[in-house]
Amino acid sequence: MTEQWLPTLKTDTPQEGYELAVKLARKAVGMTQPDPKIREMLRPVYATNADSLTLASQVVAIHFQTVAAANNYWN
Amino acid sequence: MTEQWLPTLKTDTPQEGYELAVKLARKAVGMTQPDPKIREMLRPVYATNADSLTLASQVVAIHFQTVAAANNYWN
Amino acid sequence: MTEQWLPTLKTDTPQEGYELAVKLARKAVGMTQPDPKIREMLRPVYATNADSLTLASQVVAIHFQTVAAANNYWN
Amino acid sequence: MTEQWLPTLKTDTPQEGYELAVKLARKAVGMTQPDPKIREMLRPVYATNADSLTLASQVVAIHFQTVAAANNYWN
Amino acid sequence: MTEQWLPTLKTDTPQEGYELAVKLARKAVGMTQPDPKIREMLRPVYATNADSLTLASQVVAIHFQTVAAANNYWN
Amino acid sequence: MTEQWLPTLKTDTPQEGYELAVKLARKAVGMTQPDPKIREMLRPVYATNADSLTLASQVVAIHFQTVAAANNYWN
Repeated sequence: MTEQWLPTLKTDTPQEGYELAVKLARKAVGMTQPDPKIREMLRPVYATNADSLTLASQVVAIHFQTVAAANNYWN
Repeated sequence: MTEQWLPTLKTDTPQEGYELAVKLARKAVGMTQPDPKIREMLRPVYATNADSLTLASQVVAIHFQTVAAANNYWN
Repeated sequence: MTEQWLPTLKTDTPQEGYELAVKLARKAVGMTQPDPKIREMLRPVYATNADSLTLASQVVAIHFQTVAAANNYWN
Repeated sequence: MTEQWLPTLKTDTPQEGYELAVKLARKAVGMTQPDPKIREMLRPVYATNADSLTLASQVVAIHFQTVAAANNYWN
Repeated sequence: MTEQWLPTLKTDTPQEGYELAVKLARKAVGMTQPDPKIREMLRPVYATNADSLTLASQVVAIHFQTVAAANNYWN
Repeated sequence: MTEQWLPTLKTDTPQEGYELAVKLARKAVGMTQPDPKIREMLRPVYATNADSLTLASQVVAIHFQTVAAANNYWN
């Protein structure tokens, strides 16, 4: 059985929406590199590289657009 | 005859929509590099490079925007 | 006379829309580098580089957003 | 308890919206690299590299799209 | 007096819209590097680099989204 | 007191909207690197690098989407 990890795009607050965007960004990384040990090995490399951090922030930004729209911008 | 691989953008759940976004992201790669052996050769390289994983996640994020809009954000 | 290559953004199916997105992505490359021999020379380089393939897939993703919206997501 | 840092996407003016976009862009960096000392160490590197600055500006641009839409473009 | 180069985003056809997107992409380059001799010098470099061509195509794709929306997708 | 630099996203013409997009793109650079002398030092580097110019043009393209939407595409 497939794990259920994304039942909805709805969140109560913008902040929870942002956290969901972070989750969405990381999920694709986990699907391409499913080995958690390798992902842990990569972390110190990109977490100390400014451009890597900016790139990761960009993916969050794109997902946050989607989550915000799904929540009608929490109007 | 062309293989039918994208009959609809509709999915039952956000999670299936995310999986469709992953498929959409990979399809263009397969169209540019149709040889599955070469794609397999490339996998260990980008799957152990943090920036490559982030870049791949970004393409998924863009497609997920499209799929989510097509499903009216699963409202 | 200019060649007519984009009469409409409408397509019958999502899959044809995806193929149009691929065409739109390649067109700008052809406009910047009009020499087909040079484009052919570049192909083996980027088609065996994972990040190049991901970048190309990203441009398709952006155009697919446009084509999907133009077709009201094939509702 | 989690710090509340994003109660709303609403701002009074476009300029405050832009400042919120900057905050949203930096937040993901802080979540990936939570150590402020390391982030401070990285700053002189990317702040003197034109492409790093452009990349950072791009993430702000994406978030500003979201914030502007959330505020109905301050109409 | 400033040259008038963008009176409208409206075009008669999608193809003319695409050409406008190319113009919009190049304009920012010209504003950052106003010297046409330097731009001509750079051309052979990026026109023979696959990733440079893809990056340029990406900017066109983003502008084409705008132009297509401005024309209601030429419905 | 904070300088007021973005009172509105409204412009009279598409061309002024494009100029505002350029301003929005540069603002984030200035906020990350507030020293104008360093920014001036960086300019000859990125202004003679094709990919740097394309990257900068991409940020303008993203902001132009926002400004164009804010002005209802100058309909």
